[in-house]
Amino acid sequence: MNDYGVIVQEVVKRIKELEEQPYVPVGVSNRHLHLSKADLEVLFGVGYELTKMKDLKQPGQFAANETVTIVGPKGEIKNVRILGPVRNLTQLEVSLTDGFKLGINAPVKESGKISGTPGITLVGPKGKLEMKEGVIAALRHVHVSPQFAERFNLKDKEMVSVYFDGIRQVTFQNVLIRISEHFVEEMHLDTDEANAAGIRTGAFGKIMKG
Amino acid sequence: MNDYGVIVQEVVKRIKELEEQPYVPVGVSNRHLHLSKADLEVLFGVGYELTKMKDLKQPGQFAANETVTIVGPKGEIKNVRILGPVRNLTQLEVSLTDGFKLGINAPVKESGKISGTPGITLVGPKGKLEMKEGVIAALRHVHVSPQFAERFNLKDKEMVSVYFDGIRQVTFQNVLIRISEHFVEEMHLDTDEANAAGIRTGAFGKIMKG
Repeated sequence: MNDYGVIVQEVVKRIKELEEQPYVPVGVSNRHLHLSKADLEVLFGVGYELTKMKDLKQPGQFAANETVTIVGPKGEIKNVRILGPVRNLTQLEVSLTDGFKLGINAPVKESGKISGTPGITLVGPKGKLEMKEGVIAALRHVHVSPQFAERFNLKDKEMVSVYFDGIRQVTFQNVLIRISEHFVEEMHLDTDEANAAGIRTGAFGKIMKG
Repeated sequence: MNDYGVIVQEVVKRIKELEEQPYVPVGVSNRHLHLSKADLEVLFGVGYELTKMKDLKQPGQFAANETVTIVGPKGEIKNVRILGPVRNLTQLEVSLTDGFKLGINAPVKESGKISGTPGITLVGPKGKLEMKEGVIAALRHVHVSPQFAERFNLKDKEMVSVYFDGIRQVTFQNVLIRISEHFVEEMHLDTDEANAAGIRTGAFGKIMKG
């Protein structure tokens, strides 16, 4: 067999592995903001609607053209992207590195569980908003379709481990499984977590039980 | 038994666990610079010697009062701490987050293995230095004394895993063991890795084989 034959064999083997085992692609989340309709209007003006810059991997979700500046006790970060569509709750997701820069102690929390979390100041083109709560570092999680969940015996809200190969080989434990018919397979990590593993968007992690 | 009795029992149990198993304390490394004597003189003037701000945990090593500005293609970072004493090779250790800010692709490398790594510009009070190479993201590693190594059957250059508990529970694999009579037990992680695990200096990780 010639060199191309060997390469093809290796590629076919890798594809089979990715298909037959619970591998999930990573989406690395930079700091971002979810806004309620009311809070969007405070920052951008009455009747304002988000405009789409690009679709995200999860169906219906998009990165907006709109950004805000976030201002904490120790520092500020400009050009923080808003993700659409609008939600019931305003929530700012930052990395712990961002938290140190801003001077804010962002707790690691599941999305939506913002009770008791710190607030921060948001500055938009038409107004300023003092968030009373809602600043979190997102608990790492995997979006999973019901089909994938059934195939690999995963339950909604189950905690699993996800393994990544490479020079910064790592197993993230305590990873939340979230199942919905609106989801496609994707593991969300923040920039600290992706850098600690030496990976970028598109890397594949392998789900392990326990 | 009263409440205090229960607490004392728990504390004693934890101390026994820390003593009897291969737990190591973490030291989180922020970005820092090691300088050769010649390069120190380029940046601070002929005959200049580093002055100690504080001792580090590893005997003989110290954080200097002196800092430099590092300038990359996309950005700069001020107040980057120099660690002493001077070494044979100049080496800048950054996180991958720092690398993105600077516009430099820092490879994950063992300390001292800087051949083929990128350079960067250093600016000191008396001069500027164009490093030709030496910018790395440090390969995570554990400093170990020969006594600890013998007790837990660890070999120099062995790769192990280190487990951390908590909401960002994680097992770092591919962790380098370095043994020297000049070392005390300490695992070095950079800020990305510490944040990904939700830990700070002083946290304890447990060494696991393989």
